Amino acid sequence: MGSPLDVSPELAERMINAAAGAAADYYRDLPGRPVIAQTSAAAVRAQLPRELPRTPVRFDRLIRLFTDAIAPNSRHNGHPRFFGYIASPGSAAAATGELLSAVMNANVTSWRSSPSATELEHIVTGWFKQFLGLPESAQGVLVSGGSIANFAALAAARSQAMPQVAAEGIPPDTRLRIYVSQEGHFSIDKAAALLGIGNASVVHVPVDSDFRIRLDILARQIDADVASGCTPMAIVGNAGSTATGAIDPLHSLADIAAHRRIWFHVDGAYGGFAALSPNLRDEFNGIGRADSVTLDAHKWLFSSMGAACVLYRDPAAAQAAFAHDADYTRPIGFAHDESFAFWDYSPELSRPARALPIFFHFSHAGADAIAAAIDANVRCARHFAATASSIATIEMLAPVALSVFCFRYRPRGFAGDLDVLNQRIMAELQRSGFAYLSNARINGKFALRGCVLSYRTTERDMDILMREVMRIGADLCKT
Amino acid sequence: MGSPLDVSPELAERMINAAAGAAADYYRDLPGRPVIAQTSAAAVRAQLPRELPRTPVRFDRLIRLFTDAIAPNSRHNGHPRFFGYIASPGSAAAATGELLSAVMNANVTSWRSSPSATELEHIVTGWFKQFLGLPESAQGVLVSGGSIANFAALAAARSQAMPQVAAEGIPPDTRLRIYVSQEGHFSIDKAAALLGIGNASVVHVPVDSDFRIRLDILARQIDADVASGCTPMAIVGNAGSTATGAIDPLHSLADIAAHRRIWFHVDGAYGGFAALSPNLRDEFNGIGRADSVTLDAHKWLFSSMGAACVLYRDPAAAQAAFAHDADYTRPIGFAHDESFAFWDYSPELSRPARALPIFFHFSHAGADAIAAAIDANVRCARHFAATASSIATIEMLAPVALSVFCFRYRPRGFAGDLDVLNQRIMAELQRSGFAYLSNARINGKFALRGCVLSYRTTERDMDILMREVMRIGADLCKT
Repeated sequence: MGSPLDVSPELAERMINAAAGAAADYYRDLPGRPVIAQTSAAAVRAQLPRELPRTPVRFDRLIRLFTDAIAPNSRHNGHPRFFGYIASPGSAAAATGELLSAVMNANVTSWRSSPSATELEHIVTGWFKQFLGLPESAQGVLVSGGSIANFAALAAARSQAMPQVAAEGIPPDTRLRIYVSQEGHFSIDKAAALLGIGNASVVHVPVDSDFRIRLDILARQIDADVASGCTPMAIVGNAGSTATGAIDPLHSLADIAAHRRIWFHVDGAYGGFAALSPNLRDEFNGIGRADSVTLDAHKWLFSSMGAACVLYRDPAAAQAAFAHDADYTRPIGFAHDESFAFWDYSPELSRPARALPIFFHFSHAGADAIAAAIDANVRCARHFAATASSIATIEMLAPVALSVFCFRYRPRGFAGDLDVLNQRIMAELQRSGFAYLSNARINGKFALRGCVLSYRTTERDMDILMREVMRIGADLCKT
Repeated sequence: MGSPLDVSPELAERMINAAAGAAADYYRDLPGRPVIAQTSAAAVRAQLPRELPRTPVRFDRLIRLFTDAIAPNSRHNGHPRFFGYIASPGSAAAATGELLSAVMNANVTSWRSSPSATELEHIVTGWFKQFLGLPESAQGVLVSGGSIANFAALAAARSQAMPQVAAEGIPPDTRLRIYVSQEGHFSIDKAAALLGIGNASVVHVPVDSDFRIRLDILARQIDADVASGCTPMAIVGNAGSTATGAIDPLHSLADIAAHRRIWFHVDGAYGGFAALSPNLRDEFNGIGRADSVTLDAHKWLFSSMGAACVLYRDPAAAQAAFAHDADYTRPIGFAHDESFAFWDYSPELSRPARALPIFFHFSHAGADAIAAAIDANVRCARHFAATASSIATIEMLAPVALSVFCFRYRPRGFAGDLDVLNQRIMAELQRSGFAYLSNARINGKFALRGCVLSYRTTERDMDILMREVMRIGADLCKT
């Protein structure tokens, strides 16, 4: 008798302990695993039960399924030689935070619905404001990812440019413009599309040889657009671009935006947390002047997935974009701090307690260790570039600004297509399971692109990567 | 030596075991806890460390903080007499799924980045398609919550109405209209605001005495709007409205939408999973004809927070709203199933493996037990209404369609303001910690509103609730 949903506390503890064993095995096997297993959709499917389960499945079978089928067929972002995209390993402390967040299962819509998780969110976003130099009066809210954070920030910018837009829509004959460098993340374009502005209204400003936005071109472009009747809606600065890690001159962008009264957003999804490091802090000068900032705690804070943050200098600007009233939600009979609602600041309503894993993770590691890990990642990328400078067949394609390194294999006297060769190197390296690089297009060239974002990666891993790329490249040129 | 971030597998296991103990204690204490502790923002803050942590905090201190300060200051959605809003307890199986999801820390952007989590997501959303009667060719994607799911569905609808909108924005002189009943969730209005349409373009159609949309008025309104040059963009049907649980006549709405070639979206965030119950399935007839459906697995599937789903009948329609190309994301050298990318179907890019907790939870319980729990919740709400019918001072304010019950306390001969009296009853009940109701406005009246959404709630809990409301009401009338 009793529903299989309603497990006893004792059984719940045994289930979690079984999962703890599976987790330890996963961590133990990680360095020896291929970064990604060679498989196909059909092969993965064949290992997973597809039928809608009518009757209960024993929990130990589910754990076995995790160990035998789910874990081996994942790509291991925690592997020390995973260099693809911008992905971090997470941490055991963050994972236990996710567990306890789901045990409480709070819905962090507002203070009233989750007092402690709300206060934790104020605390961790307060830390973010502090190290970025945003005022205490700024408001942070955790969202699922950087794309949503950029979207939310641009929604606030849109409402500042057109206060009536939430109610009445975009007025006819309004030609809005969003400015970002050619290296901006595509979520800016996607946000413009979703906001009804159209991604054609995003102006991609050319960059200098360090892949930083050209301020002179930006200023001229804005003035020309205004002269022709456009309304500048936002300037977006990159604080760690996706392709090369470039950091735009944020102080100068803030000046341009302030002078013209344009919303200034900084996309620090990748790089923002590097401002925790005293050695890198100066690169981010001016970030504290932004009207809004995107940060991904699941990137360079090394916390678990689903932990992005958008910070607004002026909370009222965000409220103009998101706030609404409905009888069944508006807190009744609460004073100021207790009437706080996160839905006034983001497109979400229901939200898990994202602050709990971040709080556990950040506290368990401490800011100094996080900064040291970030510094070590940057050193690894620089070490790769320094090594490359003495290797004739490795050509760096962009300066190493943070922990991204872009290069290609270029054998002497090679008459073929370097793009094709390097695509084949990437595919072969990924297939090997030994290391994982992704790609970028740099000045029209196909680049092998890596991003060091793991506290497990050492300079030795960089040497192994270099050796493997050269071995694969040489092999491919032989055949 | 060694970073405190890089814990050994053995230490990770001990950390998770410690969390398992804290979780068991939480579950054990749950029925005896007040549903929500009486506290203030200042009091909660005083129990939490606010300083940015520079050096590592011992993990057992963090666990103690969870047990002593975080858990007691949460609102306990898992308490058997938590009836507020639409919140479920989650489950131990889902919580272990969240843990293991964070241990792997996969970023489920695409098949390439997470083969097993991608296949798991296809599997669980396939189950959803199956019980709703959507075709296999439909596409499901998990998003963080119902508001984002409704937003995504309406973005797809917008692109169907205006194929060029993602690139060029909303054309001048386009007056779009979204139709939903007066009982529609505010996330529809919020989505219209964010999409640049303006929430004034949402037409709130009157309802009948069962709080279901008036089909005659809807049809007339659409025809009048078209005649005056408006473009109908979407009809939204409620499959379990927030205030009363009403289910719109979905088949008839599908007819109206099909006849006029308008996108038909069903908001099943609350009620959708009730279609798992053979006893309730008929209420949802027509849901399989929708162009898009919103479901919240963290509501009536009882899974953990952050597990909503949007289903699209025609995947290409969603792609028109969301798809984009960027060098650093587009999969290279993959065949059909392996080139699948979730970012083509939702506003998100980075996403945790939300399918893993749902898969664990659904499999561990089995569909039959979930359906039985849903049935039991509905019986509880009906039991409350049946009991009320024999109590002179309790007035039901809406029929019980699913598991929502709306009522007020109405003492004989009371000459004061019933709205004020019932607001005070709600506040006093919440303060008591004995049970928790939220509120709704029903035909202009302030209603005490409950929603049974827990496998722990019994008819005895309903009796206790009734007794408490009457006791508080009588006390308030005495003073």
